[in-house]
Amino acid sequence: MSFSITLPDGSKKDFDQAVSVLDLAKGISTSLGKAAVAAKVDGEVKSVNFMLEKDSEVAILTDKDEAGLAVLRDTVAFLLEAAAQAKYPELRLGEHEANEDGFFVDTDKEDQIKVTELPELEKAIAKLIKNGQAIEPVMVKKSELEAQFKNDPFKMELLKSEGDEVAAFKMGDFVDFGFAALLPNSGKVKHFKLLSVAGAYWQGKSSNPMLQRLFGTAFFKEADLEADLKRRAEIKERDHRTIGRDLDLFFVDPKVGAGLPYWMPKGATIRRVIERYIIDKELADGYQHVYTPVLMNLDAYKTSGHWAHYREDMFPPMDMGDGEMLELRPMNCPSHIQVYKHHIRSYRELPIRIAELGMMHRYEKSGALSGLQRVREMTLNDGHTFVALEQVQEEFAKILKLIMDVYKDFDITDYYFRLSYRDPKNTDKYFANDEMWERSQKMLKGAMDDLGLDYVEAEGEAAFYGPKLDIQTKTALGNDETMSTIQLDFMLPERFDLSYVGQDGEEHRPVMIHRGIVGTMERFIAYLTEIYKGAFPTWLAPEQVEIIPVNLDAHGEYAKKVRDELLKHGFRAEVDFRNEKMGYKIRESQTQKVPYTLVLGDDEMNSNAVNVRPYGTEKQESMSLDQFINELQADVDSYSREK
Amino acid sequence: MSFSITLPDGSKKDFDQAVSVLDLAKGISTSLGKAAVAAKVDGEVKSVNFMLEKDSEVAILTDKDEAGLAVLRDTVAFLLEAAAQAKYPELRLGEHEANEDGFFVDTDKEDQIKVTELPELEKAIAKLIKNGQAIEPVMVKKSELEAQFKNDPFKMELLKSEGDEVAAFKMGDFVDFGFAALLPNSGKVKHFKLLSVAGAYWQGKSSNPMLQRLFGTAFFKEADLEADLKRRAEIKERDHRTIGRDLDLFFVDPKVGAGLPYWMPKGATIRRVIERYIIDKELADGYQHVYTPVLMNLDAYKTSGHWAHYREDMFPPMDMGDGEMLELRPMNCPSHIQVYKHHIRSYRELPIRIAELGMMHRYEKSGALSGLQRVREMTLNDGHTFVALEQVQEEFAKILKLIMDVYKDFDITDYYFRLSYRDPKNTDKYFANDEMWERSQKMLKGAMDDLGLDYVEAEGEAAFYGPKLDIQTKTALGNDETMSTIQLDFMLPERFDLSYVGQDGEEHRPVMIHRGIVGTMERFIAYLTEIYKGAFPTWLAPEQVEIIPVNLDAHGEYAKKVRDELLKHGFRAEVDFRNEKMGYKIRESQTQKVPYTLVLGDDEMNSNAVNVRPYGTEKQESMSLDQFINELQADVDSYSREK
Repeated sequence: MSFSITLPDGSKKDFDQAVSVLDLAKGISTSLGKAAVAAKVDGEVKSVNFMLEKDSEVAILTDKDEAGLAVLRDTVAFLLEAAAQAKYPELRLGEHEANEDGFFVDTDKEDQIKVTELPELEKAIAKLIKNGQAIEPVMVKKSELEAQFKNDPFKMELLKSEGDEVAAFKMGDFVDFGFAALLPNSGKVKHFKLLSVAGAYWQGKSSNPMLQRLFGTAFFKEADLEADLKRRAEIKERDHRTIGRDLDLFFVDPKVGAGLPYWMPKGATIRRVIERYIIDKELADGYQHVYTPVLMNLDAYKTSGHWAHYREDMFPPMDMGDGEMLELRPMNCPSHIQVYKHHIRSYRELPIRIAELGMMHRYEKSGALSGLQRVREMTLNDGHTFVALEQVQEEFAKILKLIMDVYKDFDITDYYFRLSYRDPKNTDKYFANDEMWERSQKMLKGAMDDLGLDYVEAEGEAAFYGPKLDIQTKTALGNDETMSTIQLDFMLPERFDLSYVGQDGEEHRPVMIHRGIVGTMERFIAYLTEIYKGAFPTWLAPEQVEIIPVNLDAHGEYAKKVRDELLKHGFRAEVDFRNEKMGYKIRESQTQKVPYTLVLGDDEMNSNAVNVRPYGTEKQESMSLDQFINELQADVDSYSREK
Repeated sequence: MSFSITLPDGSKKDFDQAVSVLDLAKGISTSLGKAAVAAKVDGEVKSVNFMLEKDSEVAILTDKDEAGLAVLRDTVAFLLEAAAQAKYPELRLGEHEANEDGFFVDTDKEDQIKVTELPELEKAIAKLIKNGQAIEPVMVKKSELEAQFKNDPFKMELLKSEGDEVAAFKMGDFVDFGFAALLPNSGKVKHFKLLSVAGAYWQGKSSNPMLQRLFGTAFFKEADLEADLKRRAEIKERDHRTIGRDLDLFFVDPKVGAGLPYWMPKGATIRRVIERYIIDKELADGYQHVYTPVLMNLDAYKTSGHWAHYREDMFPPMDMGDGEMLELRPMNCPSHIQVYKHHIRSYRELPIRIAELGMMHRYEKSGALSGLQRVREMTLNDGHTFVALEQVQEEFAKILKLIMDVYKDFDITDYYFRLSYRDPKNTDKYFANDEMWERSQKMLKGAMDDLGLDYVEAEGEAAFYGPKLDIQTKTALGNDETMSTIQLDFMLPERFDLSYVGQDGEEHRPVMIHRGIVGTMERFIAYLTEIYKGAFPTWLAPEQVEIIPVNLDAHGEYAKKVRDELLKHGFRAEVDFRNEKMGYKIRESQTQKVPYTLVLGDDEMNSNAVNVRPYGTEKQESMSLDQFINELQADVDSYSREK
């Protein structure tokens, strides 16, 4: 036996007998030997006790490497399996996975594992860690594993895709497979946490049984774990799914439709306020709002190119008979093109601005769906303007001003601009019209400069069909998100043969500008919910005023009077008529994050006044009902921006 | 030969040789001989020169019979074919049909027959009539007809479903088939009219070539033809499709989707105003508005029973993989049931009123589709209230009051009520719960009586699942139409296992009330368009004020100022800046049925005034801009009801 190991720096080490990854690492340096958690052998992650015995390229992985972290997490997943199996002998195990977010193990047990059982499982894992048990990579005959897992239909199913010899890991009596590499000893694990339990269909198919997925995470350093848990707590507190449930804003039920949200009355109110706001804003800015069908002949998406390039993300077409194939639209552009094409257009009419709250459907894998953030049915604040090439700069600036104006109303201040151009070295990769590219890129830049805005320029980031501007905002958790886009399109006008009659009496091709301001209602409200932690500013709050009579009999009628007066002024107000204690009602109004709680007793009733407690303050103030109405109106009108 | 003819009165006539229908009629009475236009022989319509030669039941048809009218119309269709064939030798002929509305003939010609050619064809038919040519029923060998029609692929296609001997009619050289009976002589035709030309797919399939369908009608009496043409003119003038095109409200294009309307900006404005109006009205009446998905798992429609009983009217399900079948919803009830079921409900919350502008999809045959009236995608002003049985009467009365209130705002005054009960003699044909039926029918009636309303009672007209109230209005053409329905439902709460916790702490079954106020946006706006002949009242008018500067240079700025002031007050106003004559602009503002036209010259500009011309009057009046704004606001607030 004689072979040679190539290290990442290109140096080679020759061996004449098998050597473990660990010994290789030790041979390179003592410190690397200590730091080694696994290795990449010819691109595959292997344990430190993996035996090298032929020519290979090897890179030692340490706790600094992401792949090293995955080995740690896989090891904790393995320990969790072993601990759970020991605790519940009848337990069946499904898939397991380590990823950048942590790890999970799928389990199946008659009386399902509950979140309250996680601390006990953590203790059992801690014991395995303390005992410092060896974890060995072994090759096991498939038939042996089949005998062992004969009562576990999930493992049996997973075994089907294995060969005759299965790469497994063994710790005492416990054996499992499907891991690339594990740490060589349970004692190597230091900092881990079991996080949650959630239902998960076996292999992600909703027709399969629902298993319990146990989530956890692990780190090499305590500080990293602590930071991660803190981040998770923050995410959880701001998670629009949690807030959405607590405030009864919306729900999604995969049993009636995966990724199809139901907007409950309060969530629907927020959405309605935003929809009316944005429509009115656009109408005032020269847009013409339309309603176009959510279905369209598939041929239109063949013409547009969506069917060729985007089919994976589209819903299955429906055969309507009579030779008609209908498709749920994945975007609204072809629909607005129909509106444009419905008349012969003159240069005098340009720019023509078509807008719609357009419902669209996109196929997302069920595993990728999440609350209002990733859905299959969505309503986009969409708009398309059709302009002559020479109008691009002016129209672009106008759209930009509208976007910034809307941001101001929603108090979105942390954003930056990114202009995407075509790659000047690869112009043949783009829609072929040099003049259009040259002139329009210059106009986009010119508009930004005229407005005195800073921006990032990204050459080669443009889409095939035109340059664009992205406006990047930060989510509540600090992640970058594209909130708005102004996308020029030279291609669709060509594909759909759009034209307008110029001053010269000839037909000309317009440029199409796709623009989104707040994106989809779903995503935007998920974003706002997280930004505001559910405490919506008054103009958006589903309930603006909660009215609590001190005594139902004595002050109930006055409470109604106050409510009716508020309703008459167009506010959203409710009286809490329940037979509960006043303190409880006040606390609940706070929990529901109602901007104003009014408590009404004798003093208020006798002087036509209200006692006002604004949300999130300790303040309470008495004032006349008229004064409150004025202040409330001012609050709504200000969009609750800091004054 | 010996046979016997049985007449409608049961009497028999015996013959020993073949006798024509005409001779039979003459034999009965001279007047019947004169009046005979055809006969029903053993249920089939035959010409008067049809030879009877075996035992048959025969009823002579005269110009009083509908079937007789169809024979006349078929005859004119036949003459039209002959005339068109003579005029355009290369013409191909498709299908022909006579029906209660007239008749049509499908034609195919390279340069299509235009509506302007109809008068010439009418003249040619008139000539055939004047010449009094015999039309003979003949049996022709299929092969002969195939030889004759070898250049007409449509006739060849139609021949395929004929036997070896084809029943045809012959007039001179012209032969055609596919008629039951024709008049025996072209001279018998008196009063006919060719009406219009429209594209029609061969055999109704959109994948087939488009032919030109020539429409016409005919009557035995001149007065009937005149009345019919008058009615057609009235229909045409009020036809929402015509008005919709002329005012650019909407369009439907079968090439991008049959029965899927595109709402152009002006139509969309009317719809938006109505949507906001009805939502606000419902919110004020205690409804909670939601948004629910247009798609749902097919299983829900299996539970509801829609899939079993209603599948023909539903769109094809979509296979989403993962075992999920999604269906475009044909109604919103199962969606609102999800909203109800999302929480445990208490008797304290009842009635729970869920409302939505719910988009639905129903499969209608492409031939049945018509403008906004019959569509495949529609948005329903839908609502479901969930009540305890004892609350039915109060809730029913509340809904009824809301409906009448809305009618008042739309100035719908001509309507009546129809209460539908189960058939007391066939109670086993209905949902089995005698108490529910008895009590609720009594409560519906009680509510009507309490409100002092007149109503028609219809026993046995209830649906399987509960009694209902229909509110019948009259369309612009005087036809009855169900505008609103209040439908009790005992079945769906059972099928979806709905419950609420009663005061006794036990689970109880609620009653569900389906209610529609203005129906679908599509149908309601079609209805309003016809009622108003496109002259929408000010609150609904897409454009409320058209502003015309006498001189663009001199008064353009003032016109803008007036417009901006109106926009600021929330009105919909536009300035006509085109380089056209003032008179032309004023006429066009009338054609577009804009409620107010303002003409602004020196006098107006110098005194901050406007010259107002209300639509449809000869009146013009000068007033200050402020006064106009006040009057306009009063007009909008009044919903333009007669004061």
